[in-house]
Amino acid sequence: MKKVTLLGGTGSIGLQTIEVLKQHPEQFELYAFAFGAQVDKALPIIQEMKPKYIVTKDENIKEQVEKDITYDAKVSSGLEALRTISSLDEIDIVVNAILGSIGLQPTLDAIRAKKQIAFANKETLVTAGHLVMEEARKHNVELLPVDSEHAAIHQCLKGESKESIKRIILTGSGGSFRDRSRAELKGVTKSDALKHPNWSMGAKITIDSATMMNKGLEVIEAHWLFDVPYDQIDVILHKESVIHSMVEFNDQSVMAQLGTPDMRIPIQYALTYPGRSDYRMSQGLDLLSFGQLHFQEMSFERFPCLEMAYNVGKTGGSLPTVFNAANEEAVQLFLEDKITFLDIEEVIEKAVSNHETISKPDLDTIISLDQETRERVKAANG
Amino acid sequence: MKKVTLLGGTGSIGLQTIEVLKQHPEQFELYAFAFGAQVDKALPIIQEMKPKYIVTKDENIKEQVEKDITYDAKVSSGLEALRTISSLDEIDIVVNAILGSIGLQPTLDAIRAKKQIAFANKETLVTAGHLVMEEARKHNVELLPVDSEHAAIHQCLKGESKESIKRIILTGSGGSFRDRSRAELKGVTKSDALKHPNWSMGAKITIDSATMMNKGLEVIEAHWLFDVPYDQIDVILHKESVIHSMVEFNDQSVMAQLGTPDMRIPIQYALTYPGRSDYRMSQGLDLLSFGQLHFQEMSFERFPCLEMAYNVGKTGGSLPTVFNAANEEAVQLFLEDKITFLDIEEVIEKAVSNHETISKPDLDTIISLDQETRERVKAANG
Repeated sequence: MKKVTLLGGTGSIGLQTIEVLKQHPEQFELYAFAFGAQVDKALPIIQEMKPKYIVTKDENIKEQVEKDITYDAKVSSGLEALRTISSLDEIDIVVNAILGSIGLQPTLDAIRAKKQIAFANKETLVTAGHLVMEEARKHNVELLPVDSEHAAIHQCLKGESKESIKRIILTGSGGSFRDRSRAELKGVTKSDALKHPNWSMGAKITIDSATMMNKGLEVIEAHWLFDVPYDQIDVILHKESVIHSMVEFNDQSVMAQLGTPDMRIPIQYALTYPGRSDYRMSQGLDLLSFGQLHFQEMSFERFPCLEMAYNVGKTGGSLPTVFNAANEEAVQLFLEDKITFLDIEEVIEKAVSNHETISKPDLDTIISLDQETRERVKAANG
Repeated sequence: MKKVTLLGGTGSIGLQTIEVLKQHPEQFELYAFAFGAQVDKALPIIQEMKPKYIVTKDENIKEQVEKDITYDAKVSSGLEALRTISSLDEIDIVVNAILGSIGLQPTLDAIRAKKQIAFANKETLVTAGHLVMEEARKHNVELLPVDSEHAAIHQCLKGESKESIKRIILTGSGGSFRDRSRAELKGVTKSDALKHPNWSMGAKITIDSATMMNKGLEVIEAHWLFDVPYDQIDVILHKESVIHSMVEFNDQSVMAQLGTPDMRIPIQYALTYPGRSDYRMSQGLDLLSFGQLHFQEMSFERFPCLEMAYNVGKTGGSLPTVFNAANEEAVQLFLEDKITFLDIEEVIEKAVSNHETISKPDLDTIISLDQETRERVKAANG
């Protein structure tokens, strides 16, 4: 029985992680559960799964939980508590499904405690990839990606050596506006942007898919996770999202992982790794029902955020932190109807071009830069 | 430096093996070379690569070789000589690219001598899979398939456990007559049948592709190589031959290997396994130039040889030996213009239904049954 800490338990990945855990009660126990402010979503899970530790965003929510639960658990709040449950001696696995760069410190703690880490918090890698991966190498811990793309690449690399990788090919569905030109993006609304053609995901990542920022962040994430230079990472448009990503090797063999668009499958993969377990929550892939799969070039002109991600990633240093923080705030402003869809990329572009890159930022620098960028973006667009 | 014995050196796979060896002179030495009767093809290779052992089909050809070569080599002929060079102490790898069930005994010898075996001789597995795999298990030797489909499956299974395999999905291009109905197969000629849409291969396998017998033999081969029951092996029609085959796992993940239709890539894979080496003899796969990939059901009605292969495989025992021998002779008769294309499947069907299956045939039984079947087919259609 593996004991699991789940960070970000009421987000899209968090809720789907719970479904996977419930399918395999003989394999997994939810031991610690952290969530933000969504008490309504959290309480039924807590009551059913009875985690021994519960961490909330703040004291207020903590009190609500304490009032409502009917069993004995340790409830606490804040970043220090998050860090504690990420490195408890008793746990085996940390599922980091927290949204945004707040996941950074708990990730580092889990690495130092040598936990198996199922990793859905791409902002942490984007913002501090050099620190996270240095720590992972030092402690010989592998981050198991929960993103469907990176989980695919991870599977393609099973039993292979890094030296034989020629390139990583990330596939992207194109997001909710893939069939619109840039001119047609002017008047788009929040609800249009939130309609992803293939995947059911949280709001932030769905907007990131529409701007192609998500694929950009994935490029940076792939660079760090698999230690591959940017000029060996390509992105292609694949509308059906059946091939989740590919790796081309030096002998021209291309390995691909395919599946239905069900995030619970990569979640389960990261939990059961290095093995696999039965999955019964949805029908398997039926290629015959698709009949055909399509592939197109991914245009930097159509999706400038993707080009920006490559440039920011190549520059490195503190720039990805600014890039990511500006994006998180810009998406939030868009979801609050404070800026338009096309403003998102302009806000990011401005933050990036105003930043003087620091070459090897330490953790404190990253944390303060992240905060400063968010405040500056909010102040300028409030 | 790995020393290589190549059996079947002047066939399609044999010649392509030579090309791969020549690309990596720092890795491989052609140490022993066996061929049938094509002296014209063999001599330039022999003169260039200077193998220390040469084996020919018969004494007559042996004498021709001895007369023409300008360096010191041991030249011999016949099955015993084949067996000897498959188990020489000095060699590391045996490439078995012999056509037909004559490859059986050299394969068993190579297994017993614990050589790395690059295996392109599917008839051997079809005809005596139980004997070959029992020997391979006993000596802990893995057969490395050179077929593009089985090499693909082998790559999909890297780092995976047998227990997590849900099904193997072999892809087939459909062969030269894929766009014709059965009615349209009546008048087809030998030269029509030899025009494979994607792959450049030997005559026998190209005809086998047109009858779908090749895919049927591959189903039986996959059963033996990967120890997977027949009801977990599927075949789908995939006209572009880009996805060379797939494996679906119990967690619904599907792994696929993709590439250009270049047999030298799986040959190199089997030679360099468990590593990979650079491949520069052709351009890599460009999915964007395809734009789309197609998938269709493979019909048993359109391709009765495929259904027969499943039935024969499930029955097992001595039946696959008869099935394979009848097919080899039927294809030969077709190539000699002695029977029509549609006669091929009838000849096989007749041989199979007339056979009283022996449940666990030993090597001698298989060898004599193979001979008897061939003679019976030839006599009935001479």
